[in-house]
Amino acid sequence: MTLTILFAASDANWAEYAAPLRAAIAAKGLPATLTREAAPEQVDYIIYAPSSALQDFAPYTRCKAVLSLWAGVERIVGNASLTQPLCRMVDPGLTEGMVEWVVGHTLRHHLGMDRHIVNPGHVWDPTCPPIARERPVTMLGMGELGTACARALAALNFPVTGWSRTPKQIPGIPCLHGDTGLDQALSTAQIVVTLLPRTPETENTLNARTLSLLPKGAVILNPGRGPLIDDDALLAALDAGQIGHATLDVFRVEPLPQDHPFWSHPRVTVTPHIAADTRASSASHVIAENIRRGEAGEAFLHRVDRARGY
Amino acid sequence: MTLTILFAASDANWAEYAAPLRAAIAAKGLPATLTREAAPEQVDYIIYAPSSALQDFAPYTRCKAVLSLWAGVERIVGNASLTQPLCRMVDPGLTEGMVEWVVGHTLRHHLGMDRHIVNPGHVWDPTCPPIARERPVTMLGMGELGTACARALAALNFPVTGWSRTPKQIPGIPCLHGDTGLDQALSTAQIVVTLLPRTPETENTLNARTLSLLPKGAVILNPGRGPLIDDDALLAALDAGQIGHATLDVFRVEPLPQDHPFWSHPRVTVTPHIAADTRASSASHVIAENIRRGEAGEAFLHRVDRARGY
Repeated sequence: MTLTILFAASDANWAEYAAPLRAAIAAKGLPATLTREAAPEQVDYIIYAPSSALQDFAPYTRCKAVLSLWAGVERIVGNASLTQPLCRMVDPGLTEGMVEWVVGHTLRHHLGMDRHIVNPGHVWDPTCPPIARERPVTMLGMGELGTACARALAALNFPVTGWSRTPKQIPGIPCLHGDTGLDQALSTAQIVVTLLPRTPETENTLNARTLSLLPKGAVILNPGRGPLIDDDALLAALDAGQIGHATLDVFRVEPLPQDHPFWSHPRVTVTPHIAADTRASSASHVIAENIRRGEAGEAFLHRVDRARGY
Repeated sequence: MTLTILFAASDANWAEYAAPLRAAIAAKGLPATLTREAAPEQVDYIIYAPSSALQDFAPYTRCKAVLSLWAGVERIVGNASLTQPLCRMVDPGLTEGMVEWVVGHTLRHHLGMDRHIVNPGHVWDPTCPPIARERPVTMLGMGELGTACARALAALNFPVTGWSRTPKQIPGIPCLHGDTGLDQALSTAQIVVTLLPRTPETENTLNARTLSLLPKGAVILNPGRGPLIDDDALLAALDAGQIGHATLDVFRVEPLPQDHPFWSHPRVTVTPHIAADTRASSASHVIAENIRRGEAGEAFLHRVDRARGY
């Protein structure tokens, strides 16, 4: 029997994904029709991005799973009509891109690169930076992405402390958890990376109180989600020198509005939500594998826990 | 019997090294006097940096080894009076610092960071960079430092090709050698790192001909030695767009003279010879270990092959 797979995402997504998805599904030996329009009661799987108009999942009575093209599912997880299994995207290409952004910007701040990239006075100051083993880094969020970044930084000898809401055991990375653990994790961090999922509990994890716990001059890297940080508190901490620099890839409103103070703040670097992007080729293999699992009656990969919200 | 160890380096070196060297030598159980002045015929070991006035090693008839504080020995290896065993510094702290500089600047160029660090027009262009596995890197020089950097880049998924004058076998890193291998190694490189020793053979390894072999827009990172690159050829290749950017840490004259065109070239970043610095604490352990080996009749670590020049 031929499966009906509804592609519910933007025209741009369709242009990017149609060919690699068809190839990946065919490679699993699954007879399937990949389509942008279908009668809801005939749809077996929905491949989804919030760029789609689809908001009511109730009519999709046969649908065995909603497979997100995005890693973050906060714009869909609260949808009461979505009762089907929901799977996040965990794309190896996305993880690699995230590791590269996090390691790159960590090393940029660690090495003090900016003073050489912009050096109009041609200052020759051969003061060496410390080595990485003298630069504690704290990773807020130890999911797939946070763990991968923490491991890559530890491999470069950075002393990495992980923190997550619930206890985690990661070989080689000391992990703290809960409110007390957060205060402890921040108290030693010269560089903080925020890679928490966006949930009501994680909103404003970095706020006036928690920013004040950091050693003076600490650097913030946010490739996770804009609302993890209280923008006004961050700007005040930057102005006071409590925070030495913030390199931000995600924002409450994107594109970041032209009049937002982050754009012109001398201690802020804006990157335009590029830290990690799902790559059509590798992501298509993940989608196809989950469809194969659904047909074989196996557990889905990366299934979202609705209670936790991710 | 108490050993006499002559410290032949600058006042600044002495201020930095005296205490950690004494501690490291004592930790080996070696009775020794560390001094800046001694009768040459009484000296057992010389700890040396080119910042010293010492140029004639002939009177040091009892000296069992000259232990360089520097990794590069080009300013001493041609000294005909130096007939004692000569050892280079291979400091784990130096290697780590070099890996951090090389990985950091590789990621900086790979991610296109500069356009975000300097973005006066507040341009939001969410074009993602490719991932590292799509960015070939060539490492010229596969000694201690080059191999460590190549491994760190390969761990981040960069396809790394090594090149050295003589054949090398490094697990996981395809290595080329000789003149033909150099042309091949350059033909695919989007980023080239020069970490060759400075010898007559390696001078101007990157010249007008070899720079022209690179794919258009390739990036050069030179944390090795200034003379590895023909400055005029590099400037011409930068002006022509054949080379997209050069980040240089070492120069034929240091500090880089204020009127040198590298300072103001928009496609050049100057870092002030900070890629790797010997760290007194870890380097002192290496020196002390070689003195212990000399006293025990064991082979010295990192002994220089005069015929090769490093």
